Amino acid sequence: MEKHDFIPEWLEREPDQQTFRSIFKWGEKDRFKHPAQGFYTVIKEALGLSNVDFQTPVNLGAKSVENTLKTTISPEDIILFETIVGRENLFLDTYSRLKYSTGKSMEDILHLRQGKIEDISDIVVHPRNRADIIKIVALCHEKKIPLHVYGGGSCVTLGLTCPKGGVTLVMNTHMNKLIQFNEINHTITVEPGMMGPEYESLLNHAPERLNAKRRYTGGHFPQSFEFSSVGGSTATGPKINDIMKGSEGCFGVLVAVTMKTFFYQPGTARQFTFMFPEFEIAVKAAQQISQAESGMPSILRVSDSEETDVAMKMYGLEGSLPDKYMGFKGLKPGSRCLLMGQTDGEKYFSKNLFKQIKKICKTNQGLYLTGYPMKKWQKGRFSDPYMRDALNDFGILIDTLEASVTWDRLQALYHAVRDYIKKQPHTICMTHASHFYAQGTNLYFIFITKMQDVDEFRSFQRGIIEKIEENFGSLSHHHGVGRMMAPFMEKHLGKNQMDILRAIKKHFDPHNIMNPGGLGL
Amino acid sequence: MEKHDFIPEWLEREPDQQTFRSIFKWGEKDRFKHPAQGFYTVIKEALGLSNVDFQTPVNLGAKSVENTLKTTISPEDIILFETIVGRENLFLDTYSRLKYSTGKSMEDILHLRQGKIEDISDIVVHPRNRADIIKIVALCHEKKIPLHVYGGGSCVTLGLTCPKGGVTLVMNTHMNKLIQFNEINHTITVEPGMMGPEYESLLNHAPERLNAKRRYTGGHFPQSFEFSSVGGSTATGPKINDIMKGSEGCFGVLVAVTMKTFFYQPGTARQFTFMFPEFEIAVKAAQQISQAESGMPSILRVSDSEETDVAMKMYGLEGSLPDKYMGFKGLKPGSRCLLMGQTDGEKYFSKNLFKQIKKICKTNQGLYLTGYPMKKWQKGRFSDPYMRDALNDFGILIDTLEASVTWDRLQALYHAVRDYIKKQPHTICMTHASHFYAQGTNLYFIFITKMQDVDEFRSFQRGIIEKIEENFGSLSHHHGVGRMMAPFMEKHLGKNQMDILRAIKKHFDPHNIMNPGGLGL
Repeated sequence: MEKHDFIPEWLEREPDQQTFRSIFKWGEKDRFKHPAQGFYTVIKEALGLSNVDFQTPVNLGAKSVENTLKTTISPEDIILFETIVGRENLFLDTYSRLKYSTGKSMEDILHLRQGKIEDISDIVVHPRNRADIIKIVALCHEKKIPLHVYGGGSCVTLGLTCPKGGVTLVMNTHMNKLIQFNEINHTITVEPGMMGPEYESLLNHAPERLNAKRRYTGGHFPQSFEFSSVGGSTATGPKINDIMKGSEGCFGVLVAVTMKTFFYQPGTARQFTFMFPEFEIAVKAAQQISQAESGMPSILRVSDSEETDVAMKMYGLEGSLPDKYMGFKGLKPGSRCLLMGQTDGEKYFSKNLFKQIKKICKTNQGLYLTGYPMKKWQKGRFSDPYMRDALNDFGILIDTLEASVTWDRLQALYHAVRDYIKKQPHTICMTHASHFYAQGTNLYFIFITKMQDVDEFRSFQRGIIEKIEENFGSLSHHHGVGRMMAPFMEKHLGKNQMDILRAIKKHFDPHNIMNPGGLGL
Repeated sequence: MEKHDFIPEWLEREPDQQTFRSIFKWGEKDRFKHPAQGFYTVIKEALGLSNVDFQTPVNLGAKSVENTLKTTISPEDIILFETIVGRENLFLDTYSRLKYSTGKSMEDILHLRQGKIEDISDIVVHPRNRADIIKIVALCHEKKIPLHVYGGGSCVTLGLTCPKGGVTLVMNTHMNKLIQFNEINHTITVEPGMMGPEYESLLNHAPERLNAKRRYTGGHFPQSFEFSSVGGSTATGPKINDIMKGSEGCFGVLVAVTMKTFFYQPGTARQFTFMFPEFEIAVKAAQQISQAESGMPSILRVSDSEETDVAMKMYGLEGSLPDKYMGFKGLKPGSRCLLMGQTDGEKYFSKNLFKQIKKICKTNQGLYLTGYPMKKWQKGRFSDPYMRDALNDFGILIDTLEASVTWDRLQALYHAVRDYIKKQPHTICMTHASHFYAQGTNLYFIFITKMQDVDEFRSFQRGIIEKIEENFGSLSHHHGVGRMMAPFMEKHLGKNQMDILRAIKKHFDPHNIMNPGGLGL
């Protein structure tokens, strides 16, 4: 009989310096989060595990990264780079090279946990300004040395690995400054290494810090907000007017980005949560909201039933009074789905949009659960990624993949991917849509399974990408391409469109030194 | 003493077939519009003219286009084109070739009025479908024959001229059909030769014509709506994901376009008109509306004082009771400015937006004039272009240029262009902003002057473009590049961005047969 009061010894200790763990650990080194007992129980059941499986952690990555790997760049060339940025901004040690060649995909983390050092850069350079970058790019071009760009390091698509070695530019060390705030045009121009919290704080405190008349917000809060830089935007290839955006370092190095700003007026925000009898109906409501022409909510999220059930347990709502009421209303676990979100903007715009959303949801059998669950989600969402470390310590893998899809293809894509994932025994698959447009939305798949072998995991994940591709999902809605999606780009975009990217690549980078192989180029 | 009851004999007769006039006349051959007496008086005064100047019309283009110009394409090649599209879809006569190499810029019209035949294509081809176009492009590529595309013919940027001759494809003859309506995604896919009214009618009558559940609208009503095809969108160069959009026939031929659709719900529309004491204040109100985060009006238009004064006279409002009331409120001719527009969308969204706009306008000294003038403007706007023919008959030229500009640069651009135009003696310069974004707007300059010489007019116009360019306006907000703006592209976009366009051009069209010289490529 399974003991119900067993609590795993979640490892919540600051990693030692220079260890593999200090590289892959999420976020602040002294912040941790482990699954609540409700979620722990879900995982055990779904993955077919017992308390025994949570007695001995595995692959903690506690070893130090040994400084054994020689750089392949010649001493003469290293001196040339030093001359540009100064000795204090250039690093050749294995730890630095590994750190800045690694992102946050499950595959990155598995490699680090296993002490694997592969596909890393030869030199880590922290450029101080645009002038440094111009010189570095020219030097790399001349010497045919590959060049990679590291922003905040939150990449989940293997975008930071350096299969051909070369130089990695770290942008968030020095190139993180304000360039210009333009209150008349509602824009701000910053260096691309500025991190999310600093960016948002600048705008929120615009009167004090920017001498502005009002407070502003960037209005952009990815879950990686605290640990990602502003430089990463859009996915699946570049646009021509902003040809650098989405080019993932294949065409050049971004040295400044201008973004729209919005009024910071938290007082006008209204949160809402609804429970629907099933996913298809919840999606239909979200579609109607997106096509209602009454403006768009700033946050909207529809969870499928598996994610909804986990959420109910994670937040300790299972068996609660609201849960019983839902059951009474016919909203049962295994089928019911959460829709939640927030309206923002001018006071009465936000108020009316909130009203219209309520109307649409009620027409579609949605039960209003107040704004409380939404507020609770908002509070926890930035700390949820810390949980991955805790689960990984016991060999449980978590990763995500996401795709854009038009409304008419959504259900087919959802079922194809979900069926594929659920074929893997003892696997959790939680799905939600989080970005909405009149023409479609995205589907965000979170999969949790126990697996140790990187190759097995990789082939499982590649299978998901294939399902997305077959069902007319885009390869990415917002994560980007990286080396994970790169092999699928040609099939996804088609030869004609890839040939255009190749022509542009050749134009910008005839020696193919800029993130070679990135975007599939 | 000038007779006040003199009315010029405006030429309102259907042009004879095969004449130059039948090519340049605006719109339906039997529809006409001439200036009302109020506007006639304005023109006489502003241009320093008298009734005598309106007694003898000039350059009416009544001559027939003689079929004298030999085509330079070999008879063998002509047969190859005939084999593709059939004899009935291929024309070699000078009239056809001239007609489809001419748009609606003042320069196009002056040339036609003077009987000039220059820079025309060698063959006019009306492709029936995508397959025809694939064969035509392949043939042109093989034989190195230039290829141009004609949509609806409303181009005002010299985008249809063929300095190197070659083939012109006419899209609105056969390639004007519905491909697919997708009610789930709110999109419609059509061939690019479909004309505005048919496109809008399809959507408005969606239940009857497309078996849809609701009525829709394209929501896009340029003044050329009745006589332009759907294929023309965006300006100043292409984007990469939609690399064909804005490429003006330099990269290839569009054979299908998918566009967003919106609910057709005229019952929710609300019109508004305000009078402001001066242009700067009216612009400030429009800026606040655009940045208010309460949604955007579907129509918004701010006229400067010269345009406002002309409008008051055109609509016979000068000296009326509302005019006197405005004077009493300190809103004087020579300074006061109209702001008008319409809100649309979901009923309460539209209602709230209307309320917020009123609030912003009143805070900025705007006097509310009801929705009546706006409705009047909407009624007349599609027929206003007919007036150009009437004025041209007496040697009075009218043309327009437009530019996008961010809010912080708007006033400098406005004054620089206006000062330049007004330096030309006896010239009307009416300016308005008609497209609004949180970050900026466009300025649309209408200039009216008496001039006969094409070269003099061209150099006057090129001077305006230079002023726009110097003052950080874009070369175009929505008219496009054409051969009018082409010589300015390199300076405007910079060498780096032009080199990208060149690289793409070279990739698509190594023999430079697609609209050679277009976009400055």
